[in-house]
Amino acid sequence: MTDKLIIFDTTLRDGEQSPGASMTRDEKLRIARQLERLKVDVIEAGFAASSNGDFEAVKAIADVIKDSTVCSLARANDRDIARAAEALKGARSSRIHTFIATSALHMEKKLRMTPDQVFEQARLAVRFARNLTGDVEFSPEDGYRSDVDFLCRVLEAVIAEGATTINVPDTVGYAVPELYGNFIRHLRERVPNSDKAIWSVHCHNDLGMAVANSLAGVKIGGARQIECTINGLGERAGNCSLEEVVMALRTRRDYFGLTLGIETSQIVPASRLVSQTTGFVVQPNKAVVGANAFAHASGIHQDGVLKARDTYEIMRAEDVGWSANKIVLGKLSGRNAFRQRLQELGIEMASESEVNAAFARFKDLADRKSDIFDEDILALVMDESVTADQEHFRLVALSQRSETGERPQASVTFAAGNVEHQAQSDGNGPVDASLKAIESKVQSGAEMLLYSVNAITSGSTESQGEVTVRLQHGGRVVNGVGADPDIVVASAKAYLAALNKLHSKLERVAAQG
Amino acid sequence: MTDKLIIFDTTLRDGEQSPGASMTRDEKLRIARQLERLKVDVIEAGFAASSNGDFEAVKAIADVIKDSTVCSLARANDRDIARAAEALKGARSSRIHTFIATSALHMEKKLRMTPDQVFEQARLAVRFARNLTGDVEFSPEDGYRSDVDFLCRVLEAVIAEGATTINVPDTVGYAVPELYGNFIRHLRERVPNSDKAIWSVHCHNDLGMAVANSLAGVKIGGARQIECTINGLGERAGNCSLEEVVMALRTRRDYFGLTLGIETSQIVPASRLVSQTTGFVVQPNKAVVGANAFAHASGIHQDGVLKARDTYEIMRAEDVGWSANKIVLGKLSGRNAFRQRLQELGIEMASESEVNAAFARFKDLADRKSDIFDEDILALVMDESVTADQEHFRLVALSQRSETGERPQASVTFAAGNVEHQAQSDGNGPVDASLKAIESKVQSGAEMLLYSVNAITSGSTESQGEVTVRLQHGGRVVNGVGADPDIVVASAKAYLAALNKLHSKLERVAAQG
Repeated sequence: MTDKLIIFDTTLRDGEQSPGASMTRDEKLRIARQLERLKVDVIEAGFAASSNGDFEAVKAIADVIKDSTVCSLARANDRDIARAAEALKGARSSRIHTFIATSALHMEKKLRMTPDQVFEQARLAVRFARNLTGDVEFSPEDGYRSDVDFLCRVLEAVIAEGATTINVPDTVGYAVPELYGNFIRHLRERVPNSDKAIWSVHCHNDLGMAVANSLAGVKIGGARQIECTINGLGERAGNCSLEEVVMALRTRRDYFGLTLGIETSQIVPASRLVSQTTGFVVQPNKAVVGANAFAHASGIHQDGVLKARDTYEIMRAEDVGWSANKIVLGKLSGRNAFRQRLQELGIEMASESEVNAAFARFKDLADRKSDIFDEDILALVMDESVTADQEHFRLVALSQRSETGERPQASVTFAAGNVEHQAQSDGNGPVDASLKAIESKVQSGAEMLLYSVNAITSGSTESQGEVTVRLQHGGRVVNGVGADPDIVVASAKAYLAALNKLHSKLERVAAQG
Repeated sequence: MTDKLIIFDTTLRDGEQSPGASMTRDEKLRIARQLERLKVDVIEAGFAASSNGDFEAVKAIADVIKDSTVCSLARANDRDIARAAEALKGARSSRIHTFIATSALHMEKKLRMTPDQVFEQARLAVRFARNLTGDVEFSPEDGYRSDVDFLCRVLEAVIAEGATTINVPDTVGYAVPELYGNFIRHLRERVPNSDKAIWSVHCHNDLGMAVANSLAGVKIGGARQIECTINGLGERAGNCSLEEVVMALRTRRDYFGLTLGIETSQIVPASRLVSQTTGFVVQPNKAVVGANAFAHASGIHQDGVLKARDTYEIMRAEDVGWSANKIVLGKLSGRNAFRQRLQELGIEMASESEVNAAFARFKDLADRKSDIFDEDILALVMDESVTADQEHFRLVALSQRSETGERPQASVTFAAGNVEHQAQSDGNGPVDASLKAIESKVQSGAEMLLYSVNAITSGSTESQGEVTVRLQHGGRVVNGVGADPDIVVASAKAYLAALNKLHSKLERVAAQG
């Protein structure tokens, strides 16, 4: 058996399904480019048939990514699969990933199909996909809770139809390592043609064991592909964390003995990009990418730790891309320096007018903030106002004041399409007053589920505040992210960004896995 | 072998060692009370010999906790152990936990001792501890990376001296489940008197496998105690998460077959209390206690999920203490209602004057915020100003303004001891201006490592903002937390709270484990 392990990243598909983590086409494209720099083997770019927006995102990623295989999810029907193939047409290397639930519970309650119907549909779907591409992955959804005899029958049939990868999801995060590893081994031993496919694991983290389960699927079960996401993003408690599983395989190569193609120094930049884009914070005590993960390696001077670093460290911070922030640009930096830094960061703007808009925002920021870090530039190009012509709501101006003993006041000017609105409100605090002012005109009726702020770059209040606002309305949940050195302004931007996402009325079909 | 599993919580000891997570005596006491409600078997309350502050905290906890065993850490020397015993004197049930490193790397580089010296010191320490109490735990630090022959010799000797619990730490988070489980089993099989002690696991999460390793130590290794922390708090990537390991044992009782005493409905309140107290946020996709962990169970209306909840849920949100926020108090609530709610929340104030101060703050808050939730009350009693007479720096008044195109301005009045200061500053934003105004008078020279804001209660900006500021100065890292409906005021409070912690000049000895 090969000792090469395939890393399949599904941040843009399963990760994006987290309530509030939906991303625009441009955001997904930016993350896909970072995943390519990270050298993941397969990028699951989306679920092309779920919406026009997702189709466009998969297509855009397929058209530009060269070094990773680009994959689209598809339900086990011809329409979904044809749509995936269509979106993937421009890819140098592509994969169709089709799935259908095989557990009794899911077949009966969700699909309302008999096992024989599911068996037949799985077979026909893989056959259809194989006529369109040579690289077909099949997933029996809720596979780990499926009847093993039925599952073996289905898997044998789809391999016979030409499925090249068989992925066995623990959809609800119910597994423990020993049992999951043996389950995979058992399937591989019982399915007669199992050696014709690469086996894959897909674990959720509901009981905190997604990483260990995935590794048991590899070590005990003989799987050679792991499906995972940056920061463990994903529904509920999320998926297996790419950064943890990769660093476990590297740090314990003595035990796992497998080869990985991952460029680990791109892990922390990938983590930051996904966190900034989705507004999902990474907790300080998160393994590998949390702010405290290498606390001994930070500026803290402690006798003894420095002289014997290996007493407490099994990985080096540098190896996963932690490095001191470097001041890269300032007030006097010109257009060319800015453009060059964008290139070094791997950011490609869609048009010259976007570069111009970003540069204008950069000059504006540099007037108010002396040191501009890479993270500032990332926040800046992610700012909705750079692509303002596409957005419905845009902030124009804001003033606010608060004083002990008086009620905070805000006045906000913003555009809605071609109309400019001006509104005042008071509130419990200046942020509350500003959002109430906006809401008094927009009357979205949305409920706010989450409000959080993190400092970009050095963590100090001199840096930009990055605000995430999560709104819920009509059964949809969206996140808006806004950055500004002024936290009240950042909050208003984030609120308007969330309203824009609600306004886009993007509908999509939900998938699990 | 017994099927009763002991849950040993070390949030207040190993958790507190995270840079920035240090807590005051009162904060530790409040968390200890919540751990008692959670029915953990053992509370490691601190490391009594490390500082006078920690001694007082362990003593205060030992004096009030009745239903859990209270434990203090102690290095393997008579002074530390005597100090631990002294702090624990008032406890109904107490334990001394003594440790010494046994790995070649730690013995040589950190202790500069020979194996024979370590062996002798471990033996004498346990003997001394056993003369003071009947419940003695011994940990060979970095045990998992120790030479197994030497480790067996040490463990046999300390059990012979009367150690009742043997804890085997994976200090650097290097283990994988199968190897760690077999390591524990091997030790138990080789140490001739192993059946005279209860075996315990203590795992760190550097490779994301602390929970799975702990469970393998139990399932494969036969350990019957797990050491863990709320939210997985702890140095670097933290310790095994109590909430994850407990819910894995409950949800997969079919596999583990063990009995737990934990009152799981107290898990989410414990998570919130620890997060609010330390300022360490919990990421949304954190298992069990993250905001998205039960996203399907939240207000989101989705056809299909509701009609077949078990298709995607293996635990119920109610079972771990997720419940809708209830409006508990408002503007018209009186002193008695407030006092009663404090009691129901398990909050005991140290004196009548503290109750008065808290009630005054409550009335002030109720004037500005119509609905007061349990979390508001928790934030309120944690506010430094309630115990203001003990604090050096206190906020008196603040006014600030910002307007598009102008530089934000702030004016802050605060007390330092008995002196009142008034200062103005501008800044990149109103928060920055406010903190710069304070710093212009205090001149602490501290570096800000982190600034973050989370909304308490419903997540909307109508709720209070809870700001965490992490400062570093002279090799020390402290967190300050401040809450207020006005985010700028909350930031100023958090900054002053952090300065108070720096000002207290608390010094302590560091321990690992």
